[in-house]
Amino acid sequence: MKTAELNDLAQQLRVDSVRASAAAESGHPTSSMSAAELMAVLLDRHLHYDFERPAHPANDRFVLSKGHASPLLYAAYKAAGAVDDAELLTFRSLGSRLEGHPTPRRLPWVETATGSLGQGLPVGVGIALAGKRLDRTGYRVWVLCGDSELAEGSIWEAAEHAAYEHLDNLTAIVDVNRLGQRGPTRHGHDLDAYARRFHAFGWHTVEVDGHDVEAVDRAYTEAESTSGQPTVILARTLKGKGVASVQDREGLHGKPLPDPEEAIAELGGPRDLRVRVREPRAARTLRSVPTETLELPRYERGDKVATRDAFGRALAALGTARGDVVALDGEVGDSTRTEFFAKAHPDRFFECYIAEQQLIAAAVGMAARGWVPYAATFAAFFTRAFDFVRMASISGAGINLVGSHAGVAIGQDGPSQMGLEDLAMFRSVYGSTVLYPCDANQTAKLVATMAGLHGVRYLRTSRGGGPVLYGPDEEFPVGGSKVLRSSDEDRLTVVAAGVTVPEALTAAELLAGEDVAVRVIDLYSVKPVDRHTLRRAAEETGCLLTVEDHHEEGGIGDAVLDAFVDGRPVPRLVRLAVRTMPGSAAPDEQLHAAGIDAQAIAAAGRLLVGETVAG
Amino acid sequence: MKTAELNDLAQQLRVDSVRASAAAESGHPTSSMSAAELMAVLLDRHLHYDFERPAHPANDRFVLSKGHASPLLYAAYKAAGAVDDAELLTFRSLGSRLEGHPTPRRLPWVETATGSLGQGLPVGVGIALAGKRLDRTGYRVWVLCGDSELAEGSIWEAAEHAAYEHLDNLTAIVDVNRLGQRGPTRHGHDLDAYARRFHAFGWHTVEVDGHDVEAVDRAYTEAESTSGQPTVILARTLKGKGVASVQDREGLHGKPLPDPEEAIAELGGPRDLRVRVREPRAARTLRSVPTETLELPRYERGDKVATRDAFGRALAALGTARGDVVALDGEVGDSTRTEFFAKAHPDRFFECYIAEQQLIAAAVGMAARGWVPYAATFAAFFTRAFDFVRMASISGAGINLVGSHAGVAIGQDGPSQMGLEDLAMFRSVYGSTVLYPCDANQTAKLVATMAGLHGVRYLRTSRGGGPVLYGPDEEFPVGGSKVLRSSDEDRLTVVAAGVTVPEALTAAELLAGEDVAVRVIDLYSVKPVDRHTLRRAAEETGCLLTVEDHHEEGGIGDAVLDAFVDGRPVPRLVRLAVRTMPGSAAPDEQLHAAGIDAQAIAAAGRLLVGETVAG
Repeated sequence: MKTAELNDLAQQLRVDSVRASAAAESGHPTSSMSAAELMAVLLDRHLHYDFERPAHPANDRFVLSKGHASPLLYAAYKAAGAVDDAELLTFRSLGSRLEGHPTPRRLPWVETATGSLGQGLPVGVGIALAGKRLDRTGYRVWVLCGDSELAEGSIWEAAEHAAYEHLDNLTAIVDVNRLGQRGPTRHGHDLDAYARRFHAFGWHTVEVDGHDVEAVDRAYTEAESTSGQPTVILARTLKGKGVASVQDREGLHGKPLPDPEEAIAELGGPRDLRVRVREPRAARTLRSVPTETLELPRYERGDKVATRDAFGRALAALGTARGDVVALDGEVGDSTRTEFFAKAHPDRFFECYIAEQQLIAAAVGMAARGWVPYAATFAAFFTRAFDFVRMASISGAGINLVGSHAGVAIGQDGPSQMGLEDLAMFRSVYGSTVLYPCDANQTAKLVATMAGLHGVRYLRTSRGGGPVLYGPDEEFPVGGSKVLRSSDEDRLTVVAAGVTVPEALTAAELLAGEDVAVRVIDLYSVKPVDRHTLRRAAEETGCLLTVEDHHEEGGIGDAVLDAFVDGRPVPRLVRLAVRTMPGSAAPDEQLHAAGIDAQAIAAAGRLLVGETVAG
Repeated sequence: MKTAELNDLAQQLRVDSVRASAAAESGHPTSSMSAAELMAVLLDRHLHYDFERPAHPANDRFVLSKGHASPLLYAAYKAAGAVDDAELLTFRSLGSRLEGHPTPRRLPWVETATGSLGQGLPVGVGIALAGKRLDRTGYRVWVLCGDSELAEGSIWEAAEHAAYEHLDNLTAIVDVNRLGQRGPTRHGHDLDAYARRFHAFGWHTVEVDGHDVEAVDRAYTEAESTSGQPTVILARTLKGKGVASVQDREGLHGKPLPDPEEAIAELGGPRDLRVRVREPRAARTLRSVPTETLELPRYERGDKVATRDAFGRALAALGTARGDVVALDGEVGDSTRTEFFAKAHPDRFFECYIAEQQLIAAAVGMAARGWVPYAATFAAFFTRAFDFVRMASISGAGINLVGSHAGVAIGQDGPSQMGLEDLAMFRSVYGSTVLYPCDANQTAKLVATMAGLHGVRYLRTSRGGGPVLYGPDEEFPVGGSKVLRSSDEDRLTVVAAGVTVPEALTAAELLAGEDVAVRVIDLYSVKPVDRHTLRRAAEETGCLLTVEDHHEEGGIGDAVLDAFVDGRPVPRLVRLAVRTMPGSAAPDEQLHAAGIDAQAIAAAGRLLVGETVAG
């Protein structure tokens, strides 16, 4: 398109943004209008994308980091012929694919769910990293950001990561429209303020009038021809551009225009320009991923092995068997044990340094490109990235997260390093799977199994060595459990997982010596939970005692109750969990102080079965 | 102290770090050794602090952002005479105040718990902000950071905040020792790389040899004399400095020295220098906080008022009554309604822009200085700062967090904006209080009540208007609940909170028309939960039905079960919660689609009481 036509296209995107928001009676038209030229030029002159084949391996990737500007995105889809005008006007209504903020669950052209600001660029970095180091089909990644969201630290984690990895296939376009939700941003129209920051982080920077289509075109061309570093285009724009009553005014964020008809007229009325988007830069070829038979490490019963070690070794083996498995770590690979993978498969290992939000975002980006990422850090530090996990679940991203150093059992390092909320966090995530193995063979099997699941998968590992309880050929289906001890005389069931499993077995021995038969269940699948086995244990033994190295809220105790919330009779229940603030101490002292060791289990068991034998 | 003595003091700090870690057989001596001169010079020549009076309002504040260097901190306490040598050697042992990472719960000189990297500087910014805008006693804030942690986005949120607020009372000291946990950092000893970044963010920067005590002294003096902007001192250091076998070597993070005796000899042996730390810069004066009688807004029964509006107005009133209440927001004050406070008390309102980690950190910093902060954003976006909330609980920080736009009831904006995991998140936090009001009068009372609680307090508000159900003089104790409807004939209890309370009342009406008497409990206090009322309802009605605008894990359903985990008989239970991924739709359509509206409650109620009447 020539200049005049491009300007016309930009006006069409504005008109359609105004129309969609008017039809919905909600939405963010003014945030869309500021970026109309930025989008028009990208769509017509720079994006290489086959809307009929969104999975095309060489398609460029576009991420709308400022997800609230969804009317602009949908207007662009219409201009590209991907959605029709009738669908455009279903915006934000029940059942429409065109949600308030775009999600890949509904729309095949959306790479990742946005709407929580500051996440699109980090995920874009993950996609660009996949493009550069894994896919190598020559695609470019374009991310449209708002200026407000540059206040998010995650943007600077992404900036650091992208520059360090020399991602010259990545272009961030910042729609600097000066106004946030509540009022002016910190830097207003001071493009230099942003340029200084990105430049310091190692980016190539371009400042441009975001409403001058030819200037924008030159900026995109400059980005495409910059090598060795990512480019950020800082575009000076006006929020609500083109409609005098809203242009550059405060107090109009997230509201339809007051008089849409008049606004549309002021914008020159509706148009129906159609863009012919450029073809992908390379032909469509299937990715060839080498596969071999999986040979997991095998451990002997009775050996002492930390589940974090078993995880690391299993992941390395999985990486050998599956060429599509990648690993990422937050600069603690010597603790999480992703170092085993890093040594075996350095080309598929990604060091993300101490930046947990970027760690998850990079995994989400790689999953969007079809890779199977395992991202690891301390269980406690995944709390740093909860919002990214939440958004990953909205995307439907298939990511494997592995948290080491769970619970008080880590010992001397103290509470800041103890994952004591991680089960609650991951259980609350939509569609998640939560696994918590207690031994090395179980860990290995679960590491392999989780690769094939959907959504967010979490595996919790432990720092210290524990006994190998299972043989290497035992199977551990997700949603299952293991009954480690049972008899017809059982008067109590202890439900444990991870480090509390050996404690529960010891407690059962203690109680057996007092003629109290105890069933022990290893609840390695915390979500989904094995309702059948738990219900049967409740019916047969009458009492359930849960014990976990986690706060009492949201963990194993609550997971067990999931089996009993369908209106059926519930057994008598007692829950042992970490209820005090731990300090520093040796691991066994910690378990004892928290009241989750064998002695505490036995004592609670005695009370529950009505025994009054002194402990 | 003169140069030679200062060098001696630095060696003493090293020796004591080595000794403490050797005694503990764990810890981070090499990370302590790199910063010995930085600490020695600060302690002897620049810090103004009365160790006998840690609460002195004019004391400087020191934050060890690299919390794992705790041996250095404790060695400094010993040099200042605050702990003795015997206590130093209790490092990391059961019951010791000297934990692996420092916490203010145990040590009065610690401002905030650290150990999750990238949090000390953000909290330091909060303290410096309090110093500048609230306390005005002239204290300075010194934060010792590691270089690895500069990869955390939260550091850059803090950098942005500090420069924007011209915090020239803040000095960040970065111990650039080149090595992270697993290996070299991204930038190694390239001080310029860090200087460029901080400079771009508006900081004054100083680069220095961190082992040259006079150069360090000059750098601190330069920081003290810099006005209008914060200063960062980038100090080139060597990890493990002073002991050849570990100095500047990889693979030695977080490990005691291999041969402590030899190391101590190499460092010149033990010393017992005592530092006379300078007096605070101002006399000790009590803060004068104006107080008035609290006059909360009052609402009439039957009015429609959104609880977020009631929160904003109550907070403004509380601010009038209490001069120690401050408010912070993440650039959504027009949504959360902190805008009412901002208008009434602009001097005590802090705009944190879209940087939720810094939002919480600033609140923690202000709480550390005795202020009563209320920090607000969307409920969903608190997930961005979970790690900060977790660390706040370890600190024992008294912070009030208010999350608006809870649940699917927000309507068209879609899942990215819906708080659906927030109850699970906040319930899992140690010592937290979780409140979820359903009407305006209840909200107002709870906003006032939470100011006086301990630990992390969370209040969940709703976007849309709901009916006022309570009179303005009703009381709502924390840990209580309200029975809104009951009779001797009740066959079922519906437990609701927030937006599901009106739905539950409507359902009860529906069922009453079918001769099924239903009790309705408003569980406004989600944690702690009202065990007495729930147990009584269970005994009297036999069945409990919980209904919540939240995912099924970790929310109200699980909170109710807290009342029944002491081994007592549990009632029949059914849980209604959000189990699908919502899209965009009107609020009433959302409640219906999620199966948590009056019709769904009535239908579940019928099933639970064994009725088979068609819905």
